Formats: sequence, C-alpha cells, structure tokens
Amino acid sequence: MPNSMTNTIPTIAVDVMGSDLGPEELIIGIRQVLASDKSDYRIIVVGNDKVISPMLVRHDVMKDSRVKIYNASEVIEMDEKPIQAMKTKRDSSMMRAIDLVKLGTADAVLSCGNTGAMMAGGTIRLRTMDGVERPALGTVIPGKLKSFVMIDVGAAPDPKPESLVDNAILGANYARVALGVKNPRVGLLSNGTEDCKGNSLVQTAHRLFKAQEGVINYGGLVEGFGLFDGEYDVVVCDGFTGNVVLKSLESSVRMFREIIREEIMRSWLYKLGILIARGAFRNVKKRLPIEKFSGAPLLGLNGLVVKAHGSSNRRQIAGAIEITLRCLRKRMQQRIRDDVARLKEIVAQNKALALERERKSVEAHN
Amino acid sequence: MPNSMTNTIPTIAVDVMGSDLGPEELIIGIRQVLASDKSDYRIIVVGNDKVISPMLVRHDVMKDSRVKIYNASEVIEMDEKPIQAMKTKRDSSMMRAIDLVKLGTADAVLSCGNTGAMMAGGTIRLRTMDGVERPALGTVIPGKLKSFVMIDVGAAPDPKPESLVDNAILGANYARVALGVKNPRVGLLSNGTEDCKGNSLVQTAHRLFKAQEGVINYGGLVEGFGLFDGEYDVVVCDGFTGNVVLKSLESSVRMFREIIREEIMRSWLYKLGILIARGAFRNVKKRLPIEKFSGAPLLGLNGLVVKAHGSSNRRQIAGAIEITLRCLRKRMQQRIRDDVARLKEIVAQNKALALERERKSVEAHN
Repeated sequence: MPNSMTNTIPTIAVDVMGSDLGPEELIIGIRQVLASDKSDYRIIVVGNDKVISPMLVRHDVMKDSRVKIYNASEVIEMDEKPIQAMKTKRDSSMMRAIDLVKLGTADAVLSCGNTGAMMAGGTIRLRTMDGVERPALGTVIPGKLKSFVMIDVGAAPDPKPESLVDNAILGANYARVALGVKNPRVGLLSNGTEDCKGNSLVQTAHRLFKAQEGVINYGGLVEGFGLFDGEYDVVVCDGFTGNVVLKSLESSVRMFREIIREEIMRSWLYKLGILIARGAFRNVKKRLPIEKFSGAPLLGLNGLVVKAHGSSNRRQIAGAIEITLRCLRKRMQQRIRDDVARLKEIVAQNKALALERERKSVEAHN
Repeated sequence: MPNSMTNTIPTIAVDVMGSDLGPEELIIGIRQVLASDKSDYRIIVVGNDKVISPMLVRHDVMKDSRVKIYNASEVIEMDEKPIQAMKTKRDSSMMRAIDLVKLGTADAVLSCGNTGAMMAGGTIRLRTMDGVERPALGTVIPGKLKSFVMIDVGAAPDPKPESLVDNAILGANYARVALGVKNPRVGLLSNGTEDCKGNSLVQTAHRLFKAQEGVINYGGLVEGFGLFDGEYDVVVCDGFTGNVVLKSLESSVRMFREIIREEIMRSWLYKLGILIARGAFRNVKKRLPIEKFSGAPLLGLNGLVVKAHGSSNRRQIAGAIEITLRCLRKRMQQRIRDDVARLKEIVAQNKALALERERKSVEAHN
C-alpha cells in the first residue's frame, strides 16, 4: 500500500502547470496561503523549473523554508486524452506530483489540470483504499441555509450499489472537514422521496443503506426539489447523475447572470437602479459562496487528490490549499479507512446473521 | 388498438378536479381558451357534477356549444399511491377522462392531478403505441437563445437504450409542435461530449443513434454545461436523470429568487433600486418563459396524455389546453407512429445487412 507512512508535517504537492490562467496565478495563490497561515506545513511546487523558478523568486515564495521546487518538464494539456497523456508524457507535472504522494514524500496533490488525467492518474498510481472499489469526486454546493457535499460528481459513471454506500462514507468525512458538521446527515439522490422511487441502482443502494447502522447517518431518499433545503449535509449519487446535475446547475446560474446583465445594460435607468441596490446583490453572493470551495477532492484513494477548476484564480487556489491542509490535519484519510473497515465488518456480520437465520429455518423445516 | 379512429373535431377531456387551486381555477382557464380561440374543437369537462355545474354556469362556460360535462364522483388526491388509487377509486375524474380517450370520445386528456396516477393510468388504460416500449414525459425548458424539449423527465427511470432512441422521436415531434422547429436537432444528455463519455446506457444508446439515419436529426452527446446554449432542440435522457435535473434546476431557481428577494427586502434603498430597475427584471422573465409551457405530455401512448403542474393557474391551464389543441391539429400522434414505423424498418434493415455480411464472411472463410 503506497503512502502508508504519513508525514508528521502535512505536505502538499501543487502542480502549478495545468491551469488556464498560467502558473503565476497559482504561485500567487500559494504566496497568499504562506502569508496568512504561518503554521508548519510543506508545499512542493511541481512544474517546469525554467518557467516557474523566476516566478517563485519574483513573488518571494522561495524565501519561505516551507517551500520546495520539484522539476517536471512536461504539461498535460486540457484537451489531451487521459490515458494516452499519462503514457506519453512521462515527465508531466501532474503525474510527478501524484508520484510524490505515491512515494510518501507528499500527503496530497493539488492540480487545476485535465480532470480525466487526474482521475485516471490518481486511480492507477495511488490505487483505491482497501475496501473501496471506486474513487468518487466530491464537491461543496451552497444551499439556502447551509452548504452540502455532493458525491460523486464525475469519477464513476456506472458504479455498483455498494459504491454509493462507500461514497457516503467518503462524503461524510469530507463534510466533517470542509463544512465542520459533526454527524453529517446523508441523503441518496432520487426521483422522489417515497421508498418505491429510484432507478434499480438507487433502490438497491437504499436497501444497503438501511441495512447498515452506526457508520452512516442515513436519512433516506432526496429529490431534486429538496436539494437546497438544508436537510442533508451529504447528497450521494452515481458519477453520471452527479456530473449532469452539477454542470446543469452551473450553466443555469451562468445563463441567468448573463441574461440579467444584458437586460440591465439596455438602459441607464436600469443601471442606476442596480447601482442603488448593489449591496443586496453583494449579500446574495455572500450567502451563496459558489466560488469559495474551488477544490473538489477525488476521495477513496491512498493519498488525497484534489482537483481545482481549470480557471481557478489566486483566491480560489489559496482556498483549495487551505481546505487540503485541513483534511490532512484532521487526518481525514485515516478516518475514512476506519469507517470503511467498520462498514465492511457490519456487512460481514449481517451476512453471517442472514446465513444463520437461513440455516435455522431449513433445520426447522426438516 | 384503442383510439384508432381519431375525431375529425379535436376533443380534449379536461379533468378539473385534481388541482391544488381547485376546479374553479381550471374552469376559468377553459373560459379563457373558449374566448380567445373561436375555431372548432370540443372540451369535455370531467368532474363532480354537483361541484362543477354551478361554476360552469357562473362563468358562462356552459353556454358554449363546444363544451360538455362528464360526471365523475371521486377525486384521486396528490398523496395517494397511484396503482391503489386507480383500483379503489373507480369513478375518479382522472380515470374517467383517460377512459374517454380510450373509448375514442376524446383525443387527449389534460389533468393537474397526481402525476404517478396519471402515468400509471395512461400507460395501463391506453397502452403504448406499436413499437414503443415505454412512454416518456417531455417538457419544455427555456434556454439562453431558445427553448428546448427535455425527455424523459420522469416516466421510465430504468429504460433500455432502445427507449432513448424512441424518446428522440417522441421529443422531436413534440418540439415541432410546441416550439415550431422544422427539423429538431437531438442531443443525448451525458457527462461529457467526447464519444467515450456516458454511462453504459448512454454509450449503447449513442451507438444506436449513430446507426439510424434519416429518422432522427442526431447531433451527439450534450453535457450539462451545454444545456442552455441552444445547440439542441431536444435533449434525450432516461427518466431518472431527467427528473433529478429538472427538479434540481427548478429548486435552484426558486432558491435564487427567494434569497434575492430576502436581501432586497432588508433595506428601503435596495427596494428603491429594484423598483427603478424593475423593467429589466420583467424583460428577464419574458426571455425565460418558465411558466409558459405548463403542460408536459406523456408521449408514446395511444392517445395524448397531458400533465399540468398541480399548482397551475388559469393562464397556465389555458396555455396547456392551447398546446394540446395544437398537437391534435398537427396530427402529432400520427406523425410519431409514422416515425416509429420508419425507425423499426431501418433497424430491421440494418440487422438484415449485418446478418448478410456475417454470412458472406463465414462463406469466405470456408
């Protein structure tokens, strides 16, 4: 098992090359974290030495003893095919950063690069934890009263029902760290809240959830209408549905913003009105911190893999690093391992009990 | 086959009982249609005679020779279990209205009632068209530049890949009538636009779509990010994903509205600003006609079944009746039958060709 020895000092390998805004934006993000959080941690900046060294010097990042550089000559571009890119670009910043985690030099990797390559690279190089079949991508979505974690939003489009239960453990532990919830309540995304609802995947997973006790605080089925009501801290789904829902929500918000903007721009009167009311819109933005949680962790691997949006700015990068540090400090990975082990124990016990019941019933009939 | 004889005069059976706002709201909606559309059609008002007769008289609806009453003593409530309600309430307005279609007395049924009961009742009583395995619920969603039909949004949560191709035919014919598009472009909802994306259902359906030619104007995979870009007139998906996406979008819009409203109400200054800019918001509402298409047809049955929102107001009911009339006048059902027959022919031809190729290849090897 790679990375079984965790560093006592939290260490993050940051791939600064794959971003849409270029490496300098990420380096400024790193500087912001170094300036605001003076505690003990390490950041390994992974990228093309020739490109990033002058930037690191210019932004005074190299002076900080907590920072190291790791040279990687190649970059996986956004439009490259994941597996092919992994094979042909052996010295890419992303794979080098993942390998630092595999070797135990770093505990976590953060990248803005090609999501597919990151998922494939993370899964192949780090492998899934014992008892977890598929990794899952989790993300924080703001709701009306509080934010919630949605998982999986794209790693496994065709999971088994058992994987949805694993996703609940992964998501709940992430919610503890990212949202500060003590005992996260888990809902299973469905096309209605009644017990009979769901596709066959959801119906089987719903039964599995009800059969486990103590590991997951399971609240039942949640439908799209209830997503933002704050009833659940974690919403579990397969990676296909989660991806489609997340992207649809993002694009509908973008559309509304654009249309409102266009209509306001049509008249100086409208512009004046919005200027007067701008405080209200600022508060709306504060209440719906869509940009705050830019990092989406790929959970369930031996090592923490965090994906940030390709277009993340310095503030979002700083936020992603901070949340990654928090995951490491709270020993999230170990807690996930413990929960998975407890779940497997309960599943085994239930199976043994069922067999025992069956044996007795057969005996009674004979 | 029920309803093989279509009425020469379009006839709609309207169940006025299942609405959240009560039968009077629907009756006023009917009056609006009668007043604005003076052409030849029939409306059969289905409901409890004692309750609705005084209302029909009060609103001058009975004077119109195009209107008839059909008495039904019971109502299926919103929270009733569909199959059970169908069995126990034999004289419910919804089932009576569906039966009018089955008997050929009406061509279409419109109801605001229990969606599950409507889907179950429609499917069981009217049965699916020849060649269509499952009905699908279609709905119109506004986009940035134009609206599109999303199908299925809840009828079949676990369809076969072949059903997604049928959904394309159903959705395209509805788009022709509801959106006035001549040759609707169809996209298949997925977690990415590359050929390799999708869950196993989508991947198989994608292959089936590419194998058919001429019947469906298939454009490929569409992801959540592209939903509102206007590239597709019809977005096809399974009933589970469609239901979750539609409800999530609706609840996110509701949340944004509520939060913006709350923040504006906090100060008289904000209220003043919005008052000045209100024209812009009125235009936004016009550009995103969320409420315009309140009717969602359950397509693929022998007879047109149209479901309106439980909380539809008179204007939305009038809109749903108008769109139902348009479907009947454009002979949408017959066009769907023709397209399905053409598709099955192509599938059969492709199968024969593949068998022939195989036979030749075996011969060549011998």
